[in-house]
Amino acid sequence: MYRTNTCGELRLANLGQTVTLAGWVQRSRDLGGMTFVDLRDRYGITQLAFNMETDAALCEQARRLGREYVVQATGKVIERSSKNTKIPTGEIEIEVLELKVLNEAKTPPFTIEDQSDGGDDLRMRYRYLDIRRNPVRQNLELRHRMAMLVRNYLSDRDFLEIETPMLIKSTPEGARDFVVPSRMNPGEFYALPQSPQQYKQLLMVSGMDRYFQIVRCFRDEDLRADRQPEFTQIDCEMSFVDQEDVLQMFEGLIKHLLLELKGVKFEQFPRITWHEAMRRFGSDKPDMRFGMEFQEVTDVVCGRGFGLFDSSELVVGIVAEGCAEYTRKQLDALTDFVKRPQVGAGGMVYIKYNADGTLKSSVDKFYDADALKAIADRMGAKPGDLMLLLCGPAMKTRTQLCALRLEVGQQLGLRDPHKFAPLWVVDFPLLEWDLLADPSRWGDIRANAYDMVLNGSEVGGGSIRIHDRALQNQMFHTLGFTDETAAEQFGFLMDAFTYGAPPHAGLAFGFDRLCSVFSGADSIRDFIAFPKNNAGRDVMSGSPSPIAPEQLDELQIALKS
Amino acid sequence: MYRTNTCGELRLANLGQTVTLAGWVQRSRDLGGMTFVDLRDRYGITQLAFNMETDAALCEQARRLGREYVVQATGKVIERSSKNTKIPTGEIEIEVLELKVLNEAKTPPFTIEDQSDGGDDLRMRYRYLDIRRNPVRQNLELRHRMAMLVRNYLSDRDFLEIETPMLIKSTPEGARDFVVPSRMNPGEFYALPQSPQQYKQLLMVSGMDRYFQIVRCFRDEDLRADRQPEFTQIDCEMSFVDQEDVLQMFEGLIKHLLLELKGVKFEQFPRITWHEAMRRFGSDKPDMRFGMEFQEVTDVVCGRGFGLFDSSELVVGIVAEGCAEYTRKQLDALTDFVKRPQVGAGGMVYIKYNADGTLKSSVDKFYDADALKAIADRMGAKPGDLMLLLCGPAMKTRTQLCALRLEVGQQLGLRDPHKFAPLWVVDFPLLEWDLLADPSRWGDIRANAYDMVLNGSEVGGGSIRIHDRALQNQMFHTLGFTDETAAEQFGFLMDAFTYGAPPHAGLAFGFDRLCSVFSGADSIRDFIAFPKNNAGRDVMSGSPSPIAPEQLDELQIALKS
Repeated sequence: MYRTNTCGELRLANLGQTVTLAGWVQRSRDLGGMTFVDLRDRYGITQLAFNMETDAALCEQARRLGREYVVQATGKVIERSSKNTKIPTGEIEIEVLELKVLNEAKTPPFTIEDQSDGGDDLRMRYRYLDIRRNPVRQNLELRHRMAMLVRNYLSDRDFLEIETPMLIKSTPEGARDFVVPSRMNPGEFYALPQSPQQYKQLLMVSGMDRYFQIVRCFRDEDLRADRQPEFTQIDCEMSFVDQEDVLQMFEGLIKHLLLELKGVKFEQFPRITWHEAMRRFGSDKPDMRFGMEFQEVTDVVCGRGFGLFDSSELVVGIVAEGCAEYTRKQLDALTDFVKRPQVGAGGMVYIKYNADGTLKSSVDKFYDADALKAIADRMGAKPGDLMLLLCGPAMKTRTQLCALRLEVGQQLGLRDPHKFAPLWVVDFPLLEWDLLADPSRWGDIRANAYDMVLNGSEVGGGSIRIHDRALQNQMFHTLGFTDETAAEQFGFLMDAFTYGAPPHAGLAFGFDRLCSVFSGADSIRDFIAFPKNNAGRDVMSGSPSPIAPEQLDELQIALKS
Repeated sequence: MYRTNTCGELRLANLGQTVTLAGWVQRSRDLGGMTFVDLRDRYGITQLAFNMETDAALCEQARRLGREYVVQATGKVIERSSKNTKIPTGEIEIEVLELKVLNEAKTPPFTIEDQSDGGDDLRMRYRYLDIRRNPVRQNLELRHRMAMLVRNYLSDRDFLEIETPMLIKSTPEGARDFVVPSRMNPGEFYALPQSPQQYKQLLMVSGMDRYFQIVRCFRDEDLRADRQPEFTQIDCEMSFVDQEDVLQMFEGLIKHLLLELKGVKFEQFPRITWHEAMRRFGSDKPDMRFGMEFQEVTDVVCGRGFGLFDSSELVVGIVAEGCAEYTRKQLDALTDFVKRPQVGAGGMVYIKYNADGTLKSSVDKFYDADALKAIADRMGAKPGDLMLLLCGPAMKTRTQLCALRLEVGQQLGLRDPHKFAPLWVVDFPLLEWDLLADPSRWGDIRANAYDMVLNGSEVGGGSIRIHDRALQNQMFHTLGFTDETAAEQFGFLMDAFTYGAPPHAGLAFGFDRLCSVFSGADSIRDFIAFPKNNAGRDVMSGSPSPIAPEQLDELQIALKS
């Protein structure tokens, strides 16, 4: 036994006890007569005290301890003369009687502190040291706790966690599949699953009724910032349910997580149709932590001789409350923002509704005070507010205004990471044509689809599946499959559906994303113990890497030069 | 809402209620005036009753239902006139008022019954139908329950489940690694983990203190019966512990599972050293459900002119209690058994200790009654018992006798699948040379190793890890690594160990195996929802399979012809 207690648990109640602790040296302070060492483990920090008068040799030994040394100390719990109210163990310290260095440590390449001096690349290279830092450790603790809550919640409701294969059939069109050559079957390959979609539907055919799995998924695609080649889903499926059953079940799950992990209680999550979401927020995943809804003014602004507006399918804007005092510089910055290639707008029109009731705009040439007042009225603006307008083709303009809304919301501090605004987006258009173009995502086709959005992130999504063979065939033909190609692609699932498929529906949450949104963090990488970078590389281990020619030979494959 | 209740929950207490059920048609019986349909879902079976007099049309509709049709029925819960005490819902039935076919079903290729008429291959091809059968479903339910119990037990003891990468670094010697070509990094490969060994040790360096993960592992090796290319481990690691801490923790876990899942309570698991296990049972995973311990008689049998015994390093036997009446045929069968190539013995000597106190052996020519009595006394045999002896080189003979012991135990019904006999095997030889030959298994090196054995299966194993850099280097040199090759192979782990590695130890359970042993089943395949066959093939989906030339091009690899 290396320790009697952790570094996080001793209190005044333990006074007088002889204890043994083990952990890492966070820091040591040599005050001449006394030396203090902060000993750290996952559970906390406890101060070790060494007295030069009592035991000079031991004190000398303590002074030689370097940062991150692994030590074991035995001593008596005593009351601190100068208490530290910031940590739970701050009222006591250990008067050390025996000290043992369990392992030495090189000086770490960055400080193991909440705010480290190490840059992102360095911390990734030494991820095992980065994880020693409280913020990273807490992220992983949150992830664990969330997974436990999810599993217990679903298990209590008769969901069974069933493991599906990782080595699955590669499909001809599965361009984003990672493939795995089989040594036992030369020339043949497995694929890693992009999701367990087909298997969970099979499990419904199997009568498993309620399935879930917290499962690793893989996608070999060009990585955008904050995508990972391997990611984790909370994958769920239910039989004999309609959309309302599914929404209730998984709304219940997220409510449970918000209550247990964040202490916030929700009654009913708002619901919005896809079309309404696009019209009011320009996005299928609107951030509902703040309002600033879109105000359409096309009819009010047309016919005043401003050609740009007159020729636009849509003129739409937002009201930034209390921002009438924005400076020229601030407004220019917003114009620059919408003109960025990522947003792509041609420009931005502003109208200031000054506190004194006067109105001032960037298009005063075309709109007099009355006209501006009419726009302000339509938009629900009041004195002191700032109106920002974009124009152009309807959907494109909405998407651009969505970016502006989020930017202004961010600037005004309206996207509070500690506030939670969940939302169901329902009634997606019958078919999303970008999905249809990729048959490997056939399972995602959104006939009756729903997304769960939290703070502007799509954290989950699913649909009522097509269990009827005739409708399924029709869908395949719509997708351009012949009977043969459909059978090749979906053979065993189609077969399965002829043997008594129940009505079923499901949903999958992006677990990495869910963790990050719960923590108010932007990046999912911070919630993955050993993430890869944007090139799909693990800079710590150096993967991927070349493999030996003998290994290629055994797999009967060759590199193309 | 498709149903108000499941098919497993209605009782007499529900009499008079109008309910809606949905499920599969298990069977229907047409008794002329009445038609009865057994409706099945995951939760049970409920009888639907249709009365020709009350509603002829509905009854006709019910008669047309085929096996495995998916139907929805609404009706009134009534008391059965002829009760079925074998099922929990057997006192009631549903007087159906409305019947809807949700989906038709082709006749399944085998019967969906506890004892199916389908052979193994057919059931594997239609695994989704096989899972509808109670025994398979119950296996998956057990697996789910066991996973939940494991997670909650470990989480309650401060273990964090931390997901480690599936796309890891391929090591030059990792011959059993599955590799994954990276499209983004042409010519480079990831490997799928054979275990998260390195990552869990890194997590200890990270100070995570207690880690676990129920995790998929992969091994591309020639598959013996009952091996799978992908399998699941309960992977655990702890810091600041010695062997006793680890044994206590995981013994506690298995006790908890045995109590919760099997209702059996254990005090302390017996422990045995590796050498003792080999000496007493000829195996490092002895089946302790029965005795029949090895009795060494070399000194007693030598010097009687029986050359075979005289020239043998070891003569050792077992006592089959009460088997003195074994016939010639039975004894010949046992001799044939030990002569099988898988066992490899040259022959077997038997000594019958007849009930009347006389002794009869296959070596009467060399051993008179007194000599046989001396052997019987040494072996602790009593009248009515049968002694079976093997001889030869010590370790080889023990292994052969182990096979015989298990065979005889099986024949005598001593290997009761409902009985549980756990065992720790400790003090493994310092280095297992077959492991050392394969550096990718370096993490398994058993300096201070322990295995948990349950009913003769190794269900878990682990070791105290080497956290000291100097000892580690020494080990590497013993293994024949130069500093360079060691760095290449274990670079990041070795680096990590220089930054303050705590003493740590761990253990991994084979989850598939643990499930099968708990169920008293022989094959792990029955506990995997979608297993592969012995050639690593999934006959249901048809993986692995060739991939398209375009896909190979994109990965910049080619097949060797």
